[in-house]
Amino acid sequence: MLEINGIAVSNGIAVAKAYCLKEPDLSFEKVKVTDIDAEKSRLKEAFKKAKLELEEIREIALRKFGEEKAAIFSAHLLILGDPEILGAIEAKIEDGWNAEFALQETSNMYIEMFEVMDNEYMQERAADIRDVSTRLLSHLLGIEIQDYSRISTDVIIVAEDLTPSLTAQLDKTYVKGFITDIGGRTSHSAILARTMEIPAIVGTKTATRDIVQGAPVIIDGTSGKVIMNATEEVLNEYMEKQKKSEEERQLLEQYRFLESVSADGHHVEIAGNIGKPEDVEMIIENGGDGIGLFRTEFLYMDRQELPNEEEQFTAYKTVLEKMQGKPTVVRTLDIGGDKILPYLKLDHEMNPFLGYRAIRLCLDKQDIFRTQLRALLRASIYGNLKVMFPMIATVEEFREAKALLLEEKQKLVVEGIPVSETIEVGMMVEIPSAAVIADLFAQEADFLSIGTNDLIQYTLAADRMNEKVSYLYQPYHPAIIRLVKTVIEAAHQNGKWVGMCGEMAGDEIAIPILLALELDEFSMSGPSILNTRAQIAKLSKTEIAVHLEQILSLTTANEVEAYVKKNLLK
Amino acid sequence: MLEINGIAVSNGIAVAKAYCLKEPDLSFEKVKVTDIDAEKSRLKEAFKKAKLELEEIREIALRKFGEEKAAIFSAHLLILGDPEILGAIEAKIEDGWNAEFALQETSNMYIEMFEVMDNEYMQERAADIRDVSTRLLSHLLGIEIQDYSRISTDVIIVAEDLTPSLTAQLDKTYVKGFITDIGGRTSHSAILARTMEIPAIVGTKTATRDIVQGAPVIIDGTSGKVIMNATEEVLNEYMEKQKKSEEERQLLEQYRFLESVSADGHHVEIAGNIGKPEDVEMIIENGGDGIGLFRTEFLYMDRQELPNEEEQFTAYKTVLEKMQGKPTVVRTLDIGGDKILPYLKLDHEMNPFLGYRAIRLCLDKQDIFRTQLRALLRASIYGNLKVMFPMIATVEEFREAKALLLEEKQKLVVEGIPVSETIEVGMMVEIPSAAVIADLFAQEADFLSIGTNDLIQYTLAADRMNEKVSYLYQPYHPAIIRLVKTVIEAAHQNGKWVGMCGEMAGDEIAIPILLALELDEFSMSGPSILNTRAQIAKLSKTEIAVHLEQILSLTTANEVEAYVKKNLLK
Repeated sequence: MLEINGIAVSNGIAVAKAYCLKEPDLSFEKVKVTDIDAEKSRLKEAFKKAKLELEEIREIALRKFGEEKAAIFSAHLLILGDPEILGAIEAKIEDGWNAEFALQETSNMYIEMFEVMDNEYMQERAADIRDVSTRLLSHLLGIEIQDYSRISTDVIIVAEDLTPSLTAQLDKTYVKGFITDIGGRTSHSAILARTMEIPAIVGTKTATRDIVQGAPVIIDGTSGKVIMNATEEVLNEYMEKQKKSEEERQLLEQYRFLESVSADGHHVEIAGNIGKPEDVEMIIENGGDGIGLFRTEFLYMDRQELPNEEEQFTAYKTVLEKMQGKPTVVRTLDIGGDKILPYLKLDHEMNPFLGYRAIRLCLDKQDIFRTQLRALLRASIYGNLKVMFPMIATVEEFREAKALLLEEKQKLVVEGIPVSETIEVGMMVEIPSAAVIADLFAQEADFLSIGTNDLIQYTLAADRMNEKVSYLYQPYHPAIIRLVKTVIEAAHQNGKWVGMCGEMAGDEIAIPILLALELDEFSMSGPSILNTRAQIAKLSKTEIAVHLEQILSLTTANEVEAYVKKNLLK
Repeated sequence: MLEINGIAVSNGIAVAKAYCLKEPDLSFEKVKVTDIDAEKSRLKEAFKKAKLELEEIREIALRKFGEEKAAIFSAHLLILGDPEILGAIEAKIEDGWNAEFALQETSNMYIEMFEVMDNEYMQERAADIRDVSTRLLSHLLGIEIQDYSRISTDVIIVAEDLTPSLTAQLDKTYVKGFITDIGGRTSHSAILARTMEIPAIVGTKTATRDIVQGAPVIIDGTSGKVIMNATEEVLNEYMEKQKKSEEERQLLEQYRFLESVSADGHHVEIAGNIGKPEDVEMIIENGGDGIGLFRTEFLYMDRQELPNEEEQFTAYKTVLEKMQGKPTVVRTLDIGGDKILPYLKLDHEMNPFLGYRAIRLCLDKQDIFRTQLRALLRASIYGNLKVMFPMIATVEEFREAKALLLEEKQKLVVEGIPVSETIEVGMMVEIPSAAVIADLFAQEADFLSIGTNDLIQYTLAADRMNEKVSYLYQPYHPAIIRLVKTVIEAAHQNGKWVGMCGEMAGDEIAIPILLALELDEFSMSGPSILNTRAQIAKLSKTEIAVHLEQILSLTTANEVEAYVKKNLLK
């Protein structure tokens, strides 16, 4: 039995076989061969194996993903069956080269031929040939390559890190958990795991080295423990836990259509964070009271140019309509930092998190910003739109951003285009300076939304993506709790509401504190909504208020966590 | 007349000729020549010119820097006179190659020969050959290369940026000012200019493009203006200003030996920031009341390995002895971020300012930290030592650092080595979290020192070295003033003193506010001490206190600056 510890980022227990993602090494030597016939046999054998394999994959793809994805593999099979290609490789072998080199030379020739064609269809054929050639090469070398799409039993993915493109290939039916070497609570893998509602442990450092392909693995997404080759006793214990956790999940269902209200009748709003219009479904399914954060930058990413006003209008309208009048907070563009748009050609920065991003960029490149504002204004009549500006550090910035919004509104009105008259204009409080002078902002903004991910990293001066200092990403640090308190009080004194759209809003240790501090809106990933609603339903705000003074006197994050666990988790 | 505007970072007026620092382009083509004799003549001509030039430089170096530096140029002259080298180049020309290529081939051969020798002396010879070869090449190509050491008239340096190594070559007698394309108030060039007490304008963006070599230039280090080809009228105006500013400087002299006290009798301490033991002289010359910040990382830089305990002990002892019992605050190692020690082989970080640095590194690599602590403890008996930890974000960090100090102290006591019993142990408040919970820290630390450079950049989430967001480096931002107030009040409530060792402590707009907030110690670069003492002597703390409430109600940095300028600058 082997135990590895990491950072628990998504709750739950999973028991399944390890599936380790690794780039295969398909390097080989270019050599002269004398036994031409033997070499040709090797080639034919590789063709045969590849064909069988592709037929199997095609069938799985058809079953799991449907006709369209399966067609890719049909195309691959056609290439394998093309006598001209086989002939060309054999001709190279007859020149005395080994099968690997002959294959590579031939496929490169075809790839180049297709690639120079100014025709997207032909260029895709080049990609197909590359795929088929890699598959053939793996068989020649006797090295297995991984077909993620072939995963058809329950697995726990073990990888150095999970990239967005990689996860797109995974069939979420069979992936029961993630274990990664790197990452922290807010890394892509962690967020993905929470969205998929499966347990995940990140930052294990050594998982890919320690865990053997196919070995039975247990993940405890609560404690951050990974267990390999468990004894039967331990295995049973975790199976039991898993069952219990599934039962608890069923229990949560009752909260789906209930109001968000504490045991002593204090109402809050529990909203969802989304990145794309499609994500709205998950918020609705989980009974969200609204959208607390729509991160619009995803509209700008993975493309070659800026999205135009019409595209944006459609996206915002879709979200607003789906939300049927429920509050929908849209955050204007927050790019820069770790979110890069290649087509904007921004300079490299030494500290991108402290750099030219979000509202700083938008106030500088006003054409980009105005297009987004117009699209938002036009969409405003389709629902309950609230606009929020990210990364506000100074009062001037908020005033300038708001002035641009009003200017664009005025223009639309003159053009006779309808715009809602009740759009609230708020801002993110995610920079320490904004939290410290929240009273000044509360006089100018309609609402404040605390972005704890950034607020914590700036307040503690620790990059949350940097493993060496991730221990300083402390949501329960007394300074964070005080700043949150400052912001909420400042807003309420000015008759404004306060939301929170960072990870902290869905954190069970933080929730009792936030409830006692009278946070108005908790916004989180869809799967956390029911948990949070259930937790709040069991808490009495009045009772916690008694503990609040004690909590505010504690000196470290650990003390706060221990106090809440002992006194306020039921 | 041409005007360029930049960021004024060091006061004063300078009028001198522009000296533009540029890397020469010495690229050439490798070509076959037919007229061998003509090519040989070109080579000889280049040798002759280089010889004359070197003799002249040697003479200047001898006069300005002394025998040791002049000897370098004697060595270069010996190389030029070596018949074997000339012969080798001529042989290549006789093979039909152009003189540039023949020179390069020959010198490369010699350089390689010397470089492989495992002997420092011989390796230095390789550097000499490279220098001589570059000089010869410049004459062959007819391109002038700059000898910074030849500067022997008053100049204003115009450069993209000033690196530490570059400035080491400049003769400070003749450099009357700096103009750079990039940089901000706290960039290396700016700090250097203030240390040299010469005016400087940075961040002009276009100076190197707009300013012509040798053109007469005026710098106004107060307004940030650069004027080229001024009319006689304007020139006279600035000459007059320059004279007046010189007179003011003379007036300051009277404050050298005076106490630091406000017009209404409130005492403060005005101390100096230093980076090396040698810098102590400048603090003493300027009448500093102590050292508020000794940045020890310079002991660790520009070398191949960590400094040992003995070296460090000597450095700390020297500083303490020179300060003759005056308070001397030594900050423990603050590396990482933009200060890199190659021999520590730290990982590259995406956001080094939010990364593994200072106390984070010291608590992780305790052997490095303990060596420094021992050296400090041993030196403590030679003066009035106060130890200060950088980048403290959590109470745990301070406790752990202090515990290590006490452990090392205990060990020394057991070894019978004397250690002062009155060492104060404090910390930098430069991370927002530390400012927000300053009351908790004030219960554990003997003093707090506000590091405004970092505090401002973290509080506003803006990298102060990044030109695109340097406008957000706002010392007068209401959040900064509030945080400073919080820290001072928290310390005083616990009977502790508070210093400030960032740029803000010597800033004339900030000084009245800091005085009213009852900051105890202002620590700054040596040349700012007398200005600050003079300014405080003219201010009445009681009178400013009346304005303080008004200042604390302002909403932007611009409003604060305007208010202080109008009401509190006399």
